[in-house]
Amino acid sequence: MTSQAVTSAPVADSASAATPAAEGVLAAARAAKDAQPGLALLTRERKDSVLLAMADALVARADEIVAANAADLEAADAVGMDPGLRDRLLLTPERVAAIAQQLRDAAALPDPVGEVVRGSVLANGLELRQVRVPLGVVGMIYEARPNVTVDAAGLALKSGNAVVLRGGSAALHSNTALIAVLRDVLLERGLPADLVVGIDRYGREGADVLMRARGLVDVLIPRGGAGLIQRVVENSTVPVIETGTGNTHVLVDASADIDRAVEIVDNSKTQRIGVCNALETLLVHADVAESALVPIAARLAGKGVTLHADERARAILEAAGSPAQVVPATEEDWATEYLALDLAVHVVGSVDEAIEHIRCYSSGHTESILTRDLGSQRAFLARVDSAVVMVNASTRFSDGGEFGFGAEIGISTQKLHARGPMGLPELTTTRWTVIGDGHVRP
Amino acid sequence: MTSQAVTSAPVADSASAATPAAEGVLAAARAAKDAQPGLALLTRERKDSVLLAMADALVARADEIVAANAADLEAADAVGMDPGLRDRLLLTPERVAAIAQQLRDAAALPDPVGEVVRGSVLANGLELRQVRVPLGVVGMIYEARPNVTVDAAGLALKSGNAVVLRGGSAALHSNTALIAVLRDVLLERGLPADLVVGIDRYGREGADVLMRARGLVDVLIPRGGAGLIQRVVENSTVPVIETGTGNTHVLVDASADIDRAVEIVDNSKTQRIGVCNALETLLVHADVAESALVPIAARLAGKGVTLHADERARAILEAAGSPAQVVPATEEDWATEYLALDLAVHVVGSVDEAIEHIRCYSSGHTESILTRDLGSQRAFLARVDSAVVMVNASTRFSDGGEFGFGAEIGISTQKLHARGPMGLPELTTTRWTVIGDGHVRP
Repeated sequence: MTSQAVTSAPVADSASAATPAAEGVLAAARAAKDAQPGLALLTRERKDSVLLAMADALVARADEIVAANAADLEAADAVGMDPGLRDRLLLTPERVAAIAQQLRDAAALPDPVGEVVRGSVLANGLELRQVRVPLGVVGMIYEARPNVTVDAAGLALKSGNAVVLRGGSAALHSNTALIAVLRDVLLERGLPADLVVGIDRYGREGADVLMRARGLVDVLIPRGGAGLIQRVVENSTVPVIETGTGNTHVLVDASADIDRAVEIVDNSKTQRIGVCNALETLLVHADVAESALVPIAARLAGKGVTLHADERARAILEAAGSPAQVVPATEEDWATEYLALDLAVHVVGSVDEAIEHIRCYSSGHTESILTRDLGSQRAFLARVDSAVVMVNASTRFSDGGEFGFGAEIGISTQKLHARGPMGLPELTTTRWTVIGDGHVRP
Repeated sequence: MTSQAVTSAPVADSASAATPAAEGVLAAARAAKDAQPGLALLTRERKDSVLLAMADALVARADEIVAANAADLEAADAVGMDPGLRDRLLLTPERVAAIAQQLRDAAALPDPVGEVVRGSVLANGLELRQVRVPLGVVGMIYEARPNVTVDAAGLALKSGNAVVLRGGSAALHSNTALIAVLRDVLLERGLPADLVVGIDRYGREGADVLMRARGLVDVLIPRGGAGLIQRVVENSTVPVIETGTGNTHVLVDASADIDRAVEIVDNSKTQRIGVCNALETLLVHADVAESALVPIAARLAGKGVTLHADERARAILEAAGSPAQVVPATEEDWATEYLALDLAVHVVGSVDEAIEHIRCYSSGHTESILTRDLGSQRAFLARVDSAVVMVNASTRFSDGGEFGFGAEIGISTQKLHARGPMGLPELTTTRWTVIGDGHVRP
């Protein structure tokens, strides 16, 4: 050995598992890692039949799942959980059936594993192929939405991955019951139960250990609020795919069709409000500030939207006697994802100024320009560097289902590996195969 | 605003730049980020002409660069730098010309930016396109090889990215001189000099700040020894692409053509030793342990290779009176990337046992099976989960140049974003464009 020799070992193994939570989480991740290689070799037929059996088992055992959920709801009511969150936590037999349907939908999707992405024969005769293979072990950290437990497990299994689930203490009983059903089906089908492991019982410390389990977990996907995502990004040594923060913009350009603009802004803001592709900041070109803002504000007033408007917008709405509820915008409004019936409004002097505003404040999720001018479209598409950039369409179309992916594991707002809506192929990596016939390098 | 509203700001901005090094590095990264959008819009013609002008300028100013390098060499000699490292640091007029040629080669490559990766018209008429765009700001952290400075800058610029370079204190004068030439050409060509920024003067603290500059730097690519890469992986909040650790295996299967096996093992181990695709562990099927090991050991003995062999291999070589230099293998040998004239040797009972050994010890870079059996090939290709998996070929072919990429920014041993040799497309991300005609979501 020379001074340059290096000895490598997975980071997670070199850290001593000092606490019971650390020991438990690392053991769970290692079990998932050991179980996965067999899954990678299963045919699509076999994987799909397991997903369909899981769907059937969830429906058959819905009572058990709803009973477990009742325990979570009781705890939620005791601490006075926000009604929106409580609704996301709630499971009914109908909702369990809908969750089961997600597994059937996943079964119906094409299998990304095995796709030959690129291939060629090199000048020297070596046969080169880049083939899609599973990532390995996918870690999910999410909040009190038990449907994510099944959805994530289904998409992970379909793409050949084992999955480690950390779903938040508020849904502990629900997730435990759901995971038990999935694991039972795996065993019945002759597969290792550890393809799906839950680590909710290790609490927040367990999540922290998962974030450092580099070498055991191949990717971590946080789904939830900005605080959760920030914590994962800051603390993980496992590679992370950031999802979901959507400070989304619509620009009404000087040449926009105003009637259509009213419809698109309304749809972008109010069709569904608590989602990452909902509109958060409206930019209006000064040339049409009055003609566009007045009807848009009138429409949104009818939907109960509060406008956080800059001075020019406020002056226009005031002069027009708009029925809109308007408050002055602060610097903070430009950077805020409301996820509520609030909308920041800013008048800009040009498309360039709008692009600069977006560049400064956007989270890089989705932006849309409403225009009839080719130059404006060209500038916006070329220079707005977000995952999804639209022309004359509602931001609500920025979605894996709408894009035709059939399933969505999240919407990536980062640039590495996956950007925008992520479907099954985004849960895979590739492997190069090189076939020679005694080839040595000259 | 509701309780769910979130306000986002780039992490790097929220951290106060407490020290001069932190201030300097964050200012440099911000300058690169501000300069990049203009570059993203340049035509290929314009980018290539800048790269060619940089090549000419490097040749024209070779004396200046060699003089700066002399100062680094003097410092290296004063501390008794390892001769191999010193050779990597050395610049001569010929080496400067070779570095300039790399820029001309980059200019000749196709431009990845603008490629439409996928596209379709959705059922509702929305026109969907996934288009390749630059990542933004690429951070490189590397060791005392000044050629990487120019190579990385050239590939980054060609793919539309600004680059922040941290090249190690041993090459400070050389890198400063090289970067000065590149920046002068950018200015002459009417482009912002800050498309290429060096932060060597901020030392190790500067590198640490760069690793936390999330929001300013889009990706960090460490190139160098395992210690450097580990430090970057452990400390970065910026997404990292891990490169280069190659604990590479060749398996001589029971059905291997022994004459070819001797050639391939020799080539894999000795054609060049200090590189990540060089062979580090030889696995030999027990059925051919004697017939394969004896001639392989004889060949390698002639090249000065020391074998770190397990008990069975040692017994075979001893009984055959092999001229090989043999020492007993320890557990550590299986996990070691020697980068030297050393080779671990392990006899295995089956292809399965070889695959398990690789799964346990490999760094996931490159493995090759030498076989004439279709079943062995199929098992090895399906179950060895490394970036590059070969059949009957030298591991030295695991290389961007050999794969026909024309340039290589490194070899990724991780699974996200890029795996295996990385060319220009791996320095890009994609953006979805969606063109509608007043579309709202029902």
